Amino acid sequence: MPTCTIQSVQVVDARFPLPPGAGSDAVHTDPVYAMALTYLKTDRDLTGVGLALTLGDGNRLVCEAIKILAQRLDGWSIDALMAGLGRVMNELANDPALRWLGPHKGVVHLALASINNACWDLWAKAQGVPLWKLLLDLSDEELVATLDLSYLEDEITVADAIRMLREERPKRADREPVVKSGYPGYDTSVGWMAYDDSRVRELTLRAIDCGFRAFKLKVGSSDEERDVRRAAMLRKIAGDQGILMFDANQRWNPPDALRMCKALAAFHPHWIEEPTHPDDIHAHSELARAIAPDRIAAGEHVPNRVMFKNFLLYSGVHFVQADCTRLAGVSEFVAVSLLAKKHGLPIVPHVGDMGQIHQHLVLFNHIALNHEIVFLEHIPHLRSHFLFPAEVAGGVYRTPQQPGASTDMRYAADAH
Amino acid sequence: MPTCTIQSVQVVDARFPLPPGAGSDAVHTDPVYAMALTYLKTDRDLTGVGLALTLGDGNRLVCEAIKILAQRLDGWSIDALMAGLGRVMNELANDPALRWLGPHKGVVHLALASINNACWDLWAKAQGVPLWKLLLDLSDEELVATLDLSYLEDEITVADAIRMLREERPKRADREPVVKSGYPGYDTSVGWMAYDDSRVRELTLRAIDCGFRAFKLKVGSSDEERDVRRAAMLRKIAGDQGILMFDANQRWNPPDALRMCKALAAFHPHWIEEPTHPDDIHAHSELARAIAPDRIAAGEHVPNRVMFKNFLLYSGVHFVQADCTRLAGVSEFVAVSLLAKKHGLPIVPHVGDMGQIHQHLVLFNHIALNHEIVFLEHIPHLRSHFLFPAEVAGGVYRTPQQPGASTDMRYAADAH
Repeated sequence: MPTCTIQSVQVVDARFPLPPGAGSDAVHTDPVYAMALTYLKTDRDLTGVGLALTLGDGNRLVCEAIKILAQRLDGWSIDALMAGLGRVMNELANDPALRWLGPHKGVVHLALASINNACWDLWAKAQGVPLWKLLLDLSDEELVATLDLSYLEDEITVADAIRMLREERPKRADREPVVKSGYPGYDTSVGWMAYDDSRVRELTLRAIDCGFRAFKLKVGSSDEERDVRRAAMLRKIAGDQGILMFDANQRWNPPDALRMCKALAAFHPHWIEEPTHPDDIHAHSELARAIAPDRIAAGEHVPNRVMFKNFLLYSGVHFVQADCTRLAGVSEFVAVSLLAKKHGLPIVPHVGDMGQIHQHLVLFNHIALNHEIVFLEHIPHLRSHFLFPAEVAGGVYRTPQQPGASTDMRYAADAH
Repeated sequence: MPTCTIQSVQVVDARFPLPPGAGSDAVHTDPVYAMALTYLKTDRDLTGVGLALTLGDGNRLVCEAIKILAQRLDGWSIDALMAGLGRVMNELANDPALRWLGPHKGVVHLALASINNACWDLWAKAQGVPLWKLLLDLSDEELVATLDLSYLEDEITVADAIRMLREERPKRADREPVVKSGYPGYDTSVGWMAYDDSRVRELTLRAIDCGFRAFKLKVGSSDEERDVRRAAMLRKIAGDQGILMFDANQRWNPPDALRMCKALAAFHPHWIEEPTHPDDIHAHSELARAIAPDRIAAGEHVPNRVMFKNFLLYSGVHFVQADCTRLAGVSEFVAVSLLAKKHGLPIVPHVGDMGQIHQHLVLFNHIALNHEIVFLEHIPHLRSHFLFPAEVAGGVYRTPQQPGASTDMRYAADAH
């Protein structure tokens, strides 16, 4: 395949109002899903599309940051860029005039997420393959060259990363059948905070009919009895074999988290998600000990690989919910996947991308890194806005076949 | 004093180019000091001025965020606002449409710093007293009502905070002489990274002549021998009684930090500052153990009270360099001061404000919280831009007497 050269960068601030109650949780009461979209226009009929999620008006700040940062990609051939993407990302993240705004967190880091994801989408399109296949086709050295592993040296060096990938290669064949079989999704859209009990019941029953066996309920209500009542109801509907996750979206302070986790233990959660502040590694670590054998999921607000390293070293998380629209894109997601692999923990992504990119990444993690669990959140509200929405049938994610990272949006197609 | 009512908010993106080499360190090679300024205009001839520092073009992102957030202050009387400032700050920081951009970090949090500092400046001006006196004059309950202590409940509740303040009141009289005597500054401007050895020597000798006894040297050069050579030189110039701090500005990865701290130990640093990534609590904690009795300073990039709580609980820092232009203003600075007090650690602020606000805050911490150490960084480059620049004479900070937080700037006065 010939390469292509980035000729201009365009940025779109796309907002998607949701149906009443959809997306609501303990801290985001009335969200508007917003995507900060990066378009890498090239000299071929190919455009790389990257996205990062925010929940409203702050989206324009991320778009402004993309404009500042992405202009430096002008003139790069995508092949040359990707051959040293790790170094380029390191330079962008450490820009002396912008680093003060983070480092490696907040608006600027969300902008890097969108930019990095656009690079990967463009590269996969230029190669004519879906992202999961591109990732699997790269040599270990090529893949690691796309990663910025700085500040992880006490856990994983570049040499360690290459060795980890190489050691897993013999096991790939055993894992590849997942490409044909697909893997289960879990349904987050049954249990939004603002939905009343009857709505949750109705949606869960409908999801069961569609083939789902795993469901998320938003908790962290100011009415704690409501949380407990709805958890009991959902357990009854889902049955003993159903998989339930309770998500507090950071609402509880540490003492409240302990109390509520114990109250919800009766309903046998698969995990308790974001029980308290996402920076509070110590509280997560203490809580993990206190509620065992119940387990903690976290990551959608863990801003970078260094914080994930700390969560892992202090045993503050069991299910690593890395999100390539919170981290600096696919590249940092892979770096965190290597960290999690080293610590023997599963990556179950949070889907700020509505699963579009992550449907590729869980395939890669399973096949190339031997991550045991292939399981992905499903949130359908933006389906109609994607050119190639993730296909979930019978509760199972089907493997995407179109070239790219599945990030093309109709909204933006209209806008241009 | 009559109160005043906020009638409009103006935001100024002020940039201050520096003399060649000034402000340079291991990661900020050619900084432009930039201030994101919040102006709270009122119905009296009083304007509250708040500031947050950034290092260049990213400043405009912070200014944009201030515009979004500060508009909600329109129409508040300053007395009513300050009577419940903690709750207001909590609501601003947890705005459902903006919270995703943090939470409590990055561009949005820097905006809150500027906003909160403007509120304190306005309140002090409305009372006709300098900020340090306002803080000391408040009742314990009034002060604590200005703080957002959420997510600290496992360490400090509202009741704990009030009790801590009350218990220190009997000791205030012993501490109050500092208002007359002043307290020592230390000179950061002798040892910028880009200054050559002869410049460092010349500036240090001049600072000694001016009365300074404590000096900071930037380290973290790609030429490690240069770091060691300059540390040796500075120790020789300052003599055995001189106080030296070595500041790596996050440049080292964890293994490099350990190696370089050991190499620099020969020169008896008072502290090693920002040895590695500011999110890497585990690395700081391990390093603190490994280099004892040498000690670590950190905080200028610790984004919020929750991260500071974690640094304290994991023993990753000895000198807490809280900065009210990184944290959400004076309010969160006081919250972190309470945390540090509980852990028996000194606050020695980083001066993103060039010491203008912090000269008040160290007086408050010493007198009201019985923080032993009164010692403050001195960076003189923006002196001429402030209406009432901090007065440092004989190496000693003199107590400011003008009403407010000393944040009025000439630049902005011109701009309006």
